[in-house]
Parts: sequence; C-alpha cells; structure tokens
Amino acid sequence: MTKKVITLGEVMMRLSTPGNERFLQADQFNIVYGGAEANVAVSLAQWGVKSYHVTAFPDHDLGKAATNYLRQMGVGIEYIFTSEGRMGLYFLENGAMQRASKIIYDRFDSAFANFDGAEVDWDAIFEGADWFHWTGITPALSQRAADMTLAALKAASAKGITISGDINYRRNLWQYGKGPLEVMPELIRYTHIIVAGMADFENCMDITAEDYEAACIQAKKDYPQIKYITTTERDSISASENGLSAILWNGKNLLTSKKYNMTHIVDRVGGGDAYMAGLIYGLLHLSDEEALEFGVAASVLKHSIPGDANLVSLEEVKSLVKGENVGKLLR
Amino acid sequence: MTKKVITLGEVMMRLSTPGNERFLQADQFNIVYGGAEANVAVSLAQWGVKSYHVTAFPDHDLGKAATNYLRQMGVGIEYIFTSEGRMGLYFLENGAMQRASKIIYDRFDSAFANFDGAEVDWDAIFEGADWFHWTGITPALSQRAADMTLAALKAASAKGITISGDINYRRNLWQYGKGPLEVMPELIRYTHIIVAGMADFENCMDITAEDYEAACIQAKKDYPQIKYITTTERDSISASENGLSAILWNGKNLLTSKKYNMTHIVDRVGGGDAYMAGLIYGLLHLSDEEALEFGVAASVLKHSIPGDANLVSLEEVKSLVKGENVGKLLR
Amino acid sequence: MTKKVITLGEVMMRLSTPGNERFLQADQFNIVYGGAEANVAVSLAQWGVKSYHVTAFPDHDLGKAATNYLRQMGVGIEYIFTSEGRMGLYFLENGAMQRASKIIYDRFDSAFANFDGAEVDWDAIFEGADWFHWTGITPALSQRAADMTLAALKAASAKGITISGDINYRRNLWQYGKGPLEVMPELIRYTHIIVAGMADFENCMDITAEDYEAACIQAKKDYPQIKYITTTERDSISASENGLSAILWNGKNLLTSKKYNMTHIVDRVGGGDAYMAGLIYGLLHLSDEEALEFGVAASVLKHSIPGDANLVSLEEVKSLVKGENVGKLLR
Amino acid sequence: MTKKVITLGEVMMRLSTPGNERFLQADQFNIVYGGAEANVAVSLAQWGVKSYHVTAFPDHDLGKAATNYLRQMGVGIEYIFTSEGRMGLYFLENGAMQRASKIIYDRFDSAFANFDGAEVDWDAIFEGADWFHWTGITPALSQRAADMTLAALKAASAKGITISGDINYRRNLWQYGKGPLEVMPELIRYTHIIVAGMADFENCMDITAEDYEAACIQAKKDYPQIKYITTTERDSISASENGLSAILWNGKNLLTSKKYNMTHIVDRVGGGDAYMAGLIYGLLHLSDEEALEFGVAASVLKHSIPGDANLVSLEEVKSLVKGENVGKLLR
Amino acid sequence: MTKKVITLGEVMMRLSTPGNERFLQADQFNIVYGGAEANVAVSLAQWGVKSYHVTAFPDHDLGKAATNYLRQMGVGIEYIFTSEGRMGLYFLENGAMQRASKIIYDRFDSAFANFDGAEVDWDAIFEGADWFHWTGITPALSQRAADMTLAALKAASAKGITISGDINYRRNLWQYGKGPLEVMPELIRYTHIIVAGMADFENCMDITAEDYEAACIQAKKDYPQIKYITTTERDSISASENGLSAILWNGKNLLTSKKYNMTHIVDRVGGGDAYMAGLIYGLLHLSDEEALEFGVAASVLKHSIPGDANLVSLEEVKSLVKGENVGKLLR
Amino acid sequence: MTKKVITLGEVMMRLSTPGNERFLQADQFNIVYGGAEANVAVSLAQWGVKSYHVTAFPDHDLGKAATNYLRQMGVGIEYIFTSEGRMGLYFLENGAMQRASKIIYDRFDSAFANFDGAEVDWDAIFEGADWFHWTGITPALSQRAADMTLAALKAASAKGITISGDINYRRNLWQYGKGPLEVMPELIRYTHIIVAGMADFENCMDITAEDYEAACIQAKKDYPQIKYITTTERDSISASENGLSAILWNGKNLLTSKKYNMTHIVDRVGGGDAYMAGLIYGLLHLSDEEALEFGVAASVLKHSIPGDANLVSLEEVKSLVKGENVGKLLR
Repeated sequence: MTKKVITLGEVMMRLSTPGNERFLQADQFNIVYGGAEANVAVSLAQWGVKSYHVTAFPDHDLGKAATNYLRQMGVGIEYIFTSEGRMGLYFLENGAMQRASKIIYDRFDSAFANFDGAEVDWDAIFEGADWFHWTGITPALSQRAADMTLAALKAASAKGITISGDINYRRNLWQYGKGPLEVMPELIRYTHIIVAGMADFENCMDITAEDYEAACIQAKKDYPQIKYITTTERDSISASENGLSAILWNGKNLLTSKKYNMTHIVDRVGGGDAYMAGLIYGLLHLSDEEALEFGVAASVLKHSIPGDANLVSLEEVKSLVKGENVGKLLR
Repeated sequence: MTKKVITLGEVMMRLSTPGNERFLQADQFNIVYGGAEANVAVSLAQWGVKSYHVTAFPDHDLGKAATNYLRQMGVGIEYIFTSEGRMGLYFLENGAMQRASKIIYDRFDSAFANFDGAEVDWDAIFEGADWFHWTGITPALSQRAADMTLAALKAASAKGITISGDINYRRNLWQYGKGPLEVMPELIRYTHIIVAGMADFENCMDITAEDYEAACIQAKKDYPQIKYITTTERDSISASENGLSAILWNGKNLLTSKKYNMTHIVDRVGGGDAYMAGLIYGLLHLSDEEALEFGVAASVLKHSIPGDANLVSLEEVKSLVKGENVGKLLR
Repeated sequence: MTKKVITLGEVMMRLSTPGNERFLQADQFNIVYGGAEANVAVSLAQWGVKSYHVTAFPDHDLGKAATNYLRQMGVGIEYIFTSEGRMGLYFLENGAMQRASKIIYDRFDSAFANFDGAEVDWDAIFEGADWFHWTGITPALSQRAADMTLAALKAASAKGITISGDINYRRNLWQYGKGPLEVMPELIRYTHIIVAGMADFENCMDITAEDYEAACIQAKKDYPQIKYITTTERDSISASENGLSAILWNGKNLLTSKKYNMTHIVDRVGGGDAYMAGLIYGLLHLSDEEALEFGVAASVLKHSIPGDANLVSLEEVKSLVKGENVGKLLR
Repeated sequence: MTKKVITLGEVMMRLSTPGNERFLQADQFNIVYGGAEANVAVSLAQWGVKSYHVTAFPDHDLGKAATNYLRQMGVGIEYIFTSEGRMGLYFLENGAMQRASKIIYDRFDSAFANFDGAEVDWDAIFEGADWFHWTGITPALSQRAADMTLAALKAASAKGITISGDINYRRNLWQYGKGPLEVMPELIRYTHIIVAGMADFENCMDITAEDYEAACIQAKKDYPQIKYITTTERDSISASENGLSAILWNGKNLLTSKKYNMTHIVDRVGGGDAYMAGLIYGLLHLSDEEALEFGVAASVLKHSIPGDANLVSLEEVKSLVKGENVGKLLR
Repeated sequence: MTKKVITLGEVMMRLSTPGNERFLQADQFNIVYGGAEANVAVSLAQWGVKSYHVTAFPDHDLGKAATNYLRQMGVGIEYIFTSEGRMGLYFLENGAMQRASKIIYDRFDSAFANFDGAEVDWDAIFEGADWFHWTGITPALSQRAADMTLAALKAASAKGITISGDINYRRNLWQYGKGPLEVMPELIRYTHIIVAGMADFENCMDITAEDYEAACIQAKKDYPQIKYITTTERDSISASENGLSAILWNGKNLLTSKKYNMTHIVDRVGGGDAYMAGLIYGLLHLSDEEALEFGVAASVLKHSIPGDANLVSLEEVKSLVKGENVGKLLR
Repeated sequence: MTKKVITLGEVMMRLSTPGNERFLQADQFNIVYGGAEANVAVSLAQWGVKSYHVTAFPDHDLGKAATNYLRQMGVGIEYIFTSEGRMGLYFLENGAMQRASKIIYDRFDSAFANFDGAEVDWDAIFEGADWFHWTGITPALSQRAADMTLAALKAASAKGITISGDINYRRNLWQYGKGPLEVMPELIRYTHIIVAGMADFENCMDITAEDYEAACIQAKKDYPQIKYITTTERDSISASENGLSAILWNGKNLLTSKKYNMTHIVDRVGGGDAYMAGLIYGLLHLSDEEALEFGVAASVLKHSIPGDANLVSLEEVKSLVKGENVGKLLR
C-alpha cells in the first residue's frame, strides 16, 4: 500500500550562481527551492510515496512560486500556510576543485520562523500517516518553531507514527536565546530514528563517547524509544570529488554501507537529505541492510543533479545499488 | 571645475525576472544593484561628476559585490561601511502592455537600516562637496536611519552645501513607529531643492493646495530656505508606453519641460532618479530651463536601459535635448 | 463555493525559439506545455477554481514533466493517464512587426490521439463538477478521440453539468477520414456555450448567415440547448500590435465588449483560451456583461505573458476591467 | 532558370550585446557574421538564387566559423580565400526608444583589407553569372581592396554582366590616403544600378542637385551606362519605430514605393542590404514597380530578425507586398 | 587526391537538456542535429574529405535548418531530399557521475523512414566516390528504408566502391514486422568493413563464438568479401569517466589500440561514429595500425565536444595519436 | 601597513566560448578582461593591497568597460590612459579532457601597443609604492612599449622599489623587428625577482644550464641585483587535470612547494599570474617558504574560477595552505 509521510520545516528560495561563478562575478542567480525536510518530501514523492510538507510562506508571489514548486515535484501542499514574514532565502556559490562551496543564509524573520502553527490541525495531518520527519533546524529558528515542532511530535506520537529526526546542529542558528541542550532532548524523546554525527550527539544530546557505536548505545540508554541511529560519512577530497558511505545502528549492529567514489560532483547540497529520504523509503519497504544501501545510492545520485532535490526514480536507485547501468547511455 | 556630490541611502540587490517572465515562471533572476540615491550617484558619475555614496552593507560577499558594482560604475566607495544585518533586496517583475510591473521589497532588518552611522565622519565627507542628496526613503526605514539623515543634513548645512531631497512618501515603509509628519519637516528644513508630488506635499509637509504652484508657494512660506520644487509627470498608457515631462518651480515661475512620448519602454525603474541626477547636473552647470530639459531627457534615456542606473553619457543626454540622433544608428 | 471545472484535450510540449529568432537561427528552444483546453484549466486554477484536466501522456519522462507542469500551475492531475504513443509537440516561432508567427505541429500518433479512454471513469470525474469544457481540436485528432469526446459529453450531460465547446475548426487536422460535419453536430448537441466564428459556423454546423447575430439565431434553432455563443475579434495590425474585443450572444442580445489596443505583444498564443477561461469564470460568478468584459481583459493580459497559459490573478483581471493600475509600477 | 549572383566584400564577425544592454553592462556578446555585400548574398540564397560571395578570411578558426556561417545560410564559398591579417569585427549595441544604436568598427588590418586578390580568377567566377554586386565600402578599405574592386568590375563588364553598386560613403573609412572622388568615379563607370542618397552623389560622384530626380538625371549624363538609381528613405522616430519607403529612378520615372510604419523594430542593421537584395531579385524576375515593392517589403521584414541577414522566404516577402498574413499566427 | 565518401541515414534534431539538468527540470533544450551516419560525414568533412550525406527531411523550416546545419559543417547536401513525414527527433539527458545518460527517441513516421528513395539516382551519387558507409539503424526503421539501403549497396557495389557498415543492433527499432536476421545478412554481403560487437554478430549475423577473433574468422567464412571487422571497447566507470580502446581485425591479425582514460567527459554521444569516421579516414590514407589509432584518438576527442559531431581538425587527431599537446593551452 | 603595488601592461578583452563549445560551434562569447600584469593587480586587490595598473585603452565604450572592470575588482585606475588604436582582444576556446585549450590573439595595433607613455608621470606613480611588476609581454609588443617599460623601470629603480618581472617569452609576439636578447637583458638588469623557466633563461638571458639551480646561479652572476628566481611546474595530464607546484630560488636554496593534484579544472588561464600575485603578497608579508606556498595555493584556487582573475580572499588562500576547508560546504 502507498505510504504517507509528513515532513515539517522551512523551505527557502535558493539563489545560486551559474556554473562555477563566484558571488563576486555573478549577474544571474538560478532559482530553486529547498529545505532539509522538504528535500526529503520531494525525494519520496519521486518514488510513489504520498508525501506532504508542512510549512508557511509569505502571502505573495514568491511564496506562491515556492508552493507551486513543491506541487510540481509531487509533494502535497494541503498543509502549506501563509504567515507574516519574509521568504526565507539562501545564496549558494558552488565550489570546484579545492575551492569550497559557500552558503549565505538569509532566513531570519521568515514567514516560517514567525509561524506559530495555531491554525495547524496536527491530528488531521497525521491521520493515516506512516511516518513523520523533522530536523534540528526547525527548533533552532525561533521559539515558535520549536514549540510547533513539539506540538507536531506529540500529535504524531499519539497516533503511533514512526518518527525520524535529523538532529543536525548548526552553530549559526539558535539565535533566539536558547541553546540546543535546552530544547532538543525533549524533541528527541519522541523520535525513533536519529540522524546524528559525533558532534551532534554532543551538542544536542550531551553525549560524548569514544566511538560511534558507543555513542549509539549511550543514546539508546538515555532515549529508550530510539530504534535506529545513522549518519553519512563523507571524504572531502575536493569540491568535485568526495567519498560517500553511511552507517546504520539498528539497536544490535552497526551496519556499514558500500563506499562510493564520487568524482565530477554536480551539486552536493541536499546529499544528506537524499540519504535520509532513501533510508525512510528503505525502512518502510526493505530490510535494514537494503535500506542503508538504498539510502547511500540515492544520496550518490543526488550529487549528479543540480538543485536541492533528488529527482531520481526508484529504478535508478535500485540499479545503482545493484551496480547496473552505472554511467551508461540508456536508449 | 569637477563637482563633488554626496548621496546617502540604502542600496539593494535587485533580483528581476528575465524578459517578460512573471514571478511564477522564473527560474533565473538578473542581478543588479540599486537604490534611489545611489542611482543618482551612478548617473552623475557617468557625466564626470565625482560622486560618493554613503551607505552600509553586510560584511559578506553580497555586500562586497554591491560595493564593487558601485565602484565599477564610477561611484566613490570611500564612505561605504559594514554593519550587522541583511543585504537589502528587492524583487522585480517587469510589466508589459497593460500588465503592471511588480516590486516585492525585502529590505527590513538590512545592514543599512541597522546602521547607526556612529563611525561616519560627516565633516570629512562634506569637505569640498558641492551637493548633498537624500530621499524620504531613508528616514522611513528606521529610527537610526532617520537620526543619521538628520546628522548628515546638519553637517552638510554647516558646510553651506546645496541640499536636495526627494521626499517620496511610500506607505509600505514607516514601520518603526513614527509617521512622516513626525520626522520629515525637520529634515526638509535643511533642504533647498525638493522633489515632491501633490501627495508628498500632503503626507510629508502637511500642505494641501489647489494646484502645484500654490503648493510650492505655500511650501516656500513654511520652509523659506527652499529654492526649487520639482516633480516628473508620467502618463501611464501601458507598461510599455508612457508620456513623460517634468515641472520645476524656481521660486518665481513654474517651468514646464518638453513632453516625451516613450514607447517600447525597456525598464522604468530608476526613471525618477535619473531625472533627479539630471536636474542636479543641470543646476550645477546650466540655466534653470536647461537643467529641467536635461533632467527630463536623462530620464527618458533611462527607460531604454535595463537596471536601475542611467548609464548614458553627457553627449547622449545633450543630443536628446537638441533632438539629435534620436533612434539613429551611430557608426 | 469553490467551483469545479473539468477540461479534456491534448497537451503538447511547446518548443519555441528564444527572443525573436527564426527557426533557421535557433540553437535553443524554450519549453512550456500547452493545449487549448489545458490552457483554460490553468487559467481557472489561478483564480481559485478547482480545475481538473483529462488527458493522456506517454509513459516516459517527457510525459511526467508535462504532468508536473500542470500540477505546478494548480491543475488537478488525478485524471491524467498514460497511453501508447508520442508526446505531442508543437514548434513556435514568434513573429515580430509585420512578420507573422509560425507554428509547426508535430502531434500525430500522440499518446492522446491513441488513447481510447476505456479506463476513464467519467461518472467519477463529473461528480460534483460545475462545468465541462471541450474544443473541436479533440474530435479532429482521431476516431478514438472523437468517441471519447462523445462519451465525456454524454456523462457530463447526464449529470446536468454546464458544457462549453470551442468549436475551432482547423483545416490541417481532420486527417483520420472524417470531416467536421460528420462529427461535430452530434457533439455540439450537448453543448450550452459555443465559441465560434463565422467560418466555424459553416464548417462545423453548416450554418451560413449574413451576420453574426443571424448565425446565432439559426444555431439556437438547430441546437436549442445552446445558451450562449461567443467569439473574439482581433485586428492584426502587426505581430506586435493587435486590437482585441469580443462579442457574446446570450439568446437575447449581442453584447459587445470594450476594445483594447494591444501594443508590444509578448506572446499571443493562448489568447483565445484565456478569453474562454475568463468567460467561464465570469458566467460562473458574474453577470453576462461582466463575464464578457472579464474574459476580454483576461485575454489582453495573456498577451503580455510568455507561454500558452494565462498566469494572472483575479485581482489583476478585475483591475484591468476597471481600468486601474494599467501599466503601473506596483510596489 | 536559376540566377547566379556574385558579391564581393568584407565579412565581419558581429559582436552584439544581448537584449537592450549597453556596452558598459554586457558580459556576453552574441556572434553573427555580416557585411553589406555578403548580407545581399545571404538574402538572395534564401530565395533560390545561386549566390557566391568573394572575400578573404584569416586562416584560423574564426575565419572557418565565418565561412561555415555563409555556407550554412546557402551562400557558395568556392571563392572564399585566406589571407594575412585579422578577422574584421564590429561591435553593436542595439538602441531602444530614443536611444540610438552604436557600432564600433574594428576592421583595419583585416585579412580582406590586406588581400590583393592575385589568386582570384575573376573570369571563372563570372562565368555564367547574371549579376555582380559591390559597395563603396570595399574601395574605402585599402588600395589593394580598391584595385581588386576595379579588377572585378572589368572582368564582370567584359562578360556583359549586370552590375550594381551601393556607393554608400562612410567618413570613418577612407584612411589609406585617397578620397572617394579619386577612386569611386572609375568604379561607378562600370555600374548599371546605383544605390545612392543625396550625400553619396556629392561625396562619390561630385554631383549636387536640387532634388533626387535632378541628381539622377545628372548622374545619367555623367555615367551613361547607368540604368537605375535608387535609395531607401527612413524616418527615424525612435530606435524602435521607423518609417520606411524607397524610390527607384529607372531612367524615365522616379517610382515611389509604399511606405511602411515599422514599430517594435528588432534589429535594423542590414535593412539597406535587404532592400538591395530584394531589388536585385526583383529586377531579375519582376517589373520595375514590382521590384521596388519587393525590395522595400524585404527590407521591412529584415527589421524583425536579429542579425545582419534577412532570413525570409520568397513567399513571406510576396505576402507582405500583397498585404497578406501581416502579423498573423500561421499554423 | 581528395577522397569522396557517401553516407546514408536519418538525421534527427537532437534536443538536449542544458548542463546537467534532468528532463524533469529542463525549461530549455539545446538543438543540434545528428545521426550515426551523418556524424561520420561531418567528421570526415573536417578533415578535407568531400563527404555527401543522403537523407530525406520534411519540407518545412525544421528540415531546412537541419540541411543548413550539415552544409555549415561542410557536408555536401546535393543528395538531401524532402519527403512526407515528421522531423525525426531525439531527446537527450546527459548523465553525470554514476547517473546514466538517457535518450528518448521520437523518430517513427519520420520523413526518412517514409522515404522510398525512388527519386535517388544512386549511379550519379556514387560516380567518383571512394567509400560508402551505412549502418544497421537504417534497415531497422522501415521496409522502405531497408529496401533503399539494399538499392544503395547494389549501386555502390557495381561501382566497385569500398563499403563499410556499422551493424549496430538496437532492440527498440525493428518495429515494422521484420527482424534483423531477415534483413541484415543480405546487406552485410555487400560490405567490406564491419563494425560489430559480440552481440551484433549474434543478432545480425547469427554468429556466436568464444571470442572476438573467432567471431571474425567465422564472419569471414560466411561473408568472404569482408576485409576488416572492428569494434570499440568502452569501460564505463561513470558517466563522466570511461576507458576507451578499439580492436581491428584485418583478416590476419587482431590489432589492439592504445587505451585512453577519459575523465571529465563532456558528451559521449557520437563517440562510436567518431571512431568510424577516423577509421575510414585512416583506411583511406594510412596503414592498418595507424588507421586504428587515428580512429580511437578521434573518438576520444569527440567526448570533449558538445553535440553529436566530432568537430576536430586533422592536426588535433594526429597530435593526440602522438601524445602531443594533450590538454595544453595553445596560444 | 597597506602595501602599494604598481603593475604595467596591456589589458585585453577576452572573448571565450561558453561551456565546452569550440570556436566552430559558438554563437556567444563570454566577456571578461585580462592581461598578465593586470591579473596580478586584481589578485592583490582582493587581499587588501592597494594595486594600481598602468595601461592605455582606446577612447570608446569598450575601453571604458575595461576600465570599469578593473575598478570593479578593486584596482586603482588613476593611471589608465587613452591612446589611438584598437582594443586588444583575445579569443579563448576552453579545452576539456585530452583536447587542448586554444587562444587566438588579436592584439596588434592596440591602444597599448601604440601608447608612448609620454604623458605618464612615473615619479608620481611610484611615490610611496612598495613594488613594481612587469612582464616580458610588454617589451615584445612594440618599440614604444619596450621604451616605456625601460622608462618605468628606471623610475621605479630610482625610488628603490622592489621590482619583479615575469620574463615569459612568447614566440608569436616580437613582431616589430627586435628579438628578446636585444631588449630583455637591459630590462632584467633592474629586476629583483625573476619568473623564468628554462626556455626563458635561454631566450631572454642567453643562459643555458644543466638544471634550474645552475641556471639561477648563472643568472645571479650575470645580473647581481637578482634576489629571487621562480617558476611554476605544471603536469598536463589533460585539459581537465593538472599537477601544480612551484620552485623558488632565494639566492641560497631552491625551495620546492607542495604539489597539488588539480582535477576538474574550470579555467587555467591566469594560473601563472595568480602564482605571481601570491608570491608578491608573500614576499611582502611572509617568509620565503610561506610566500612560495601562498603563491602555489593561490594559483590552485585560480583554476577553479572562470576568467583571467583570481577572485579569492586572503582567508581562502591561507586555508588551502593549511589544508583546511578543502572542497567543503561552508555555511
């Protein structure tokens, strides 16, 4: 049966310099839309999952364009609201070779950060849903956004829905007077699948450990509802060449994926979100090992596509997992 | 002798849809930079005037790119500062035919609005200057910006510099708790050349009159330092076709310019600023009648150029005033 | 209450040369999607009408991209099917000045022309619908398409839904062995609102008359269910300048709209569909006279927008009807 | 029978700013190729005339690209040579509205100007030809080019071929030490159809007269081989709007064409060459009156096409002469 | 002496997404033209070979544009015909990294597939020719195309011309009711140089063998007129990185070329055709070993060029064979 | 304290084909400006050095655009002059894979080559300067340019300023009747830091030696004022992949930098100038070893940026030297 997945988070207009131009050279920006959670929703929609994104936009043409983008890519927009505030933006300069990529965020005072969610009927949203996905970005934006995340988690939890959270600590957020340790633990307490690197364990869960598995075991002790913990591992040889793999702790074992060598990277933004979407798809339909490999293969393919979103088909991900059609010319 | 002109105001990154695309269609934006006062400075720089713009940008690559743009176009950047806050933005959808052009401003919390000007040495800036130009946009942004405008006016006045102000009332600004009548009169009191339409007289100077000349006479009574009052008159037949003329009251007479029929308009944004720049150039170098005609011709040419700024030469404006080379092919 | 409108017809990928380039010069095509009926659905969706388009695409990425386009622009895609056959295409070279625009159709053997509609549940589609719109293009494509049109008309009629048909005779279609007089009269017999010019009356209904009103009266005699007959009138001064008005016969009077002078035309394709959408909106919500003016104003605005579809808001059309904001700069 | 026409002259790479950008704004140039005589050859090739262009390019990829361009557009390249020297260039900034268009020539020391034509077998070239066309630009470039023009004229004359010359005086050429009156009369003495305005009569033929017809009569006296004299007349309302007509003196009468109002001009460069090509086609196939109208209609259509060359079909020109399909949408 | 080569086959308009965009993202297509056999003709033309391509296009502007393209690139168009039917198209999405490239063919019912060649004077075409090249695509399109291929082969054979055939089996063609084994053997019987991989041997010649050399020996037994058999070998590490080499069996030995490592591939379409063109050039001018190396080097360079055609000079291929100037900056 | 650096040399408009297009394919050129010495000035300006470039442009809009470009990028334009002559140009086709990049220079008769520098007040220019940089390109252009270089060197020397020279021998220059050995030694005699490869030693200094260090020692003997000799070493695996390192002889030791593997090269033009700028910055602020590493890291980053100029910040170069942030995504 078709699965239904709910995601919550800010969607920003992404303005990126064309080709390899620097900000100092550009006189055009390419426009797409993205956000860590919406990227997951778009990925899942490509694979036939009914995904709905919950967010808020300003009530003007840029908000409409963003809504239309999500709809175009197959995401349900029934739970998109309007709110006072700006369109969140981010400016991207794609790196190349040894030169790093740069993002300038311009998201403060956005409609989403200002949105209090009072008009959101979480019960209706989660009716019939199989999964809810959130990230640590939302509670880092504003008190309102943190409160809304908690409200969503409570509602999802009451419905018995599987919950995943990418706890993703970003230092340049958290400007509203609270730190992650004041906010995140309560949210994590509702979450079954955690995406976290070692720094995230420390910053959001106050867990330090000598290795990843130990951190997982400690996390499970502190948050017994956790079922899976996962993270991607990226070797950054250059902006154009990375190694990529992932690990998945399923409460018993630390599974390690195949490692891919990615050369000629087109766009690495959204690579982690593509992994998350792949993992959700996998955990809904496949074994743990298969889910992990599906997630990593999905993420690899994302790196070949301009924009935040992973516009690949189920067949393409499955082929890469099997090592078929790699780089071929399909007629 | 080369004249020196100082302008003060916010410079925004302008993001416009290419060609005739609507916001709902665009997947690229063209980038230029503009602001009512900086547009004046760029115009004047094309004509050999030493123009310097005073403003503040965020301390990141977009601020640098904006600074570089002004420098490229010949404006002195010695008095550009960095400040906390965003890069001010505005989004432009160019109209066509009967369809209007649309601007979505995104300038709140900008570096300029947050800038308190404490580090600005106004005395140094105005040393040797011939003219200072401000607009009603700046005091409408924030208390800090209003205070800084007053500080600048006082310093310029102390140096005996000619001061012009486009009092330009915009309803969607003035969000910081004060209205124009609480702020503008004090600023206008330092200003010798006023750009004002009938609505501006009422909104910023509390003057209502039966016609433009009567309003001018009343303004002179209330603000005896005023020497000139001026405004452009635009017939908006369609987004692609306008009539344009201007009037200039010089304390004695209400001078009326030639009226131009502008068809095939390329970009009307900045048309008023181009007039202002032309008038300033004219009042510095020409008779009143010539200054008025120079300003209107400059404004007409602006409508043929994409972007906010009027990148035309002195010779081109003078030719149009004389009716020479109109639409020719110059080899 | 929100209205629900169903449209039926082929959607083609439109490949147009950029700017004013001729086919012999182009090395890029701009891609949008369009079709006479889907253009109506897109227009209506901009105005809050729930519009659903019934069509068939090939089961590959171009079909998906076309589906996504309709979804992006707000059209319901629940009734879009896949079928054997090609993606219908049309190539467009935009005219300028005295030079005409050119279309090369490439739509034979398309998925839609091959689609027999066996899997379409018309009863379900028309449940709760207020309006069904078809055009004379569909029955001209293939016997299957003609049969499907009839099936749809019977089902809509059985539900008591208002039906409009643009009977739009195109000589270069009708290649499958039947002529319009063998097919169209039966379809027209279910239709309440007819779009027809004098040539269409003759070609599709075998009606000749000395003027438009006489033709309408004769049509009503032959097809007594008809309630309205309408057509646009276009003066083609050049590819860049047209006059536009419309007439609407409502069984009693022949109403004549305001006539607009359109200079600086951006894209005239879809102008008639924009009128049709406007008229449908108007007849669902307004008086006859208002509906006619709404339709013509909508069509005028369409000419300012690149692409087949009329991406304008309700407010923009209403403003033009009132003569407000024409060609202004809205901040 | 298919006609064969030979043209001689420099072909330059044309680098034009996109859209309405000024030189000071452009960061891209569009590339096409053009020259007054080659533009005639390209026009004629569109109408089924076998046209061959004689010129010289530098022996590198830019010369090859220019050769390929002429071949693409149907011009015979059998008589294109390589020579020492540069690729001739010209930079074009398209005007708009009241703003004039600007050309910066960069053609000195070009391969063509340096070409002495020693390897050209004029007898072979003119074998079977019906027409030879030259312009006053070639003898203005260099002594070598002037000598080669004379050699070509002698060879063409010896074959009894019809010869046309656009005597087109350009002040910024003629840099090699001679003036037009030292060179042009000898060349004009071989020429049957002269394109000349009043200033050209004076500068190149030392003829002043009170009106055009008087000048023609005097020219015929001085150069009795002349059969036709012609010129276009352009009203330059703005860069976007011109009036266009032409006059043709055929030894008896001064024929005057229909006058076209051209609004929304796309590219006026090559408008005169398009007229010339049309006139040549007309004089080869039609009556004098028809030839004149064909030439003017061809020129009007040129103004709707980007680039130097008039890429229109015979049918399109004929339709415009008849006033058919003007600005229509041809399906 | 300059060699003359004739090629026969369909030329399609190729519509490719810009950069690395997917079909689901593109709103522009880049236009070039290509076909397996015409690509060979274009390559050979760059090297001074007189190449003529035999094909048919629809009689409209897209057919003219395709003809002009071939002419631009130096291919003789004297034997290009018009026919009823569509312009053949193919849509290309360039892969990147692990993501495969995708082609959607849209060539059924094309003018070429419908062309019966009745008006082709094969004797005249092959007069003075040195080589005729065909591929297995043509007989796979339609019975008419298969018949025409046979007619061409008979005529070429009667003139004693060297014949090459790329037997290239494509499963998605062969829709007209026959399979390759019913058609190909008769065509192969006229062919001296065969391009075939192991699968082609089986599908088109019913030959299975344990290795390539054994297959060649068997082919020679079955088709004694064969002189050479060849194929390229491609390691597909990713869409951006391939290994490339080729083998050539000359009746005695199986020659193996140098193997190139190709990273940063720009466009792999036409790589095989570039090899074929290089081999033809080589076999016409060089030793077997040199011909093989010339072919592979030509193919490698093709991968660096956008479009189907290999626009490289003789000097560039020769340099790469010698390992000179590889990736240098040539001033 | 902020350093002041003076550079002297021609600045050309660079016209490059977009993406990977060949000259034979391009119908657009990208425009930037560059020259070996101005590229150094632009680099240094990014790092806070006050750099001034001395050059001459033609007195038209292309010269103004070039001047504006330098100003935009932070270079002082106080010493830019106008002169008779052309805008120097160069055409660039970027290589890819095994295919080499190609430059077609078009710089003869340029304003700079014609400039005699009579109006240059070298004493004023060098007042307060820390460094003067020249290259072997300037004296290779014309006698006037060689004389001006000598005049500059004498003036700089008289002020005791550090002088660097990239002696860079280019065979296709030196067309004015003198060879490098007649001109360069006198210029080198004023120069403290020499950039020279083995071929340059021979061509410009008549020094042959068995290895680089021996050549340096000999150079120091012949030119005792020399303090440093340096060169970059580039392994050209393909146009897309190079190795890069540099060596610096400081009178005592031959220091060798880290070697970088550069894959996915974006634009290698200006790589040497970026090294030079880095070395100048380094020798002004750092130890010899650090200066060398700073220079190489700067050059590596240049290869990731389109255009001639190295638009990277001090922090970016320093990070690469430390191996930090390599290819990361900086938020």
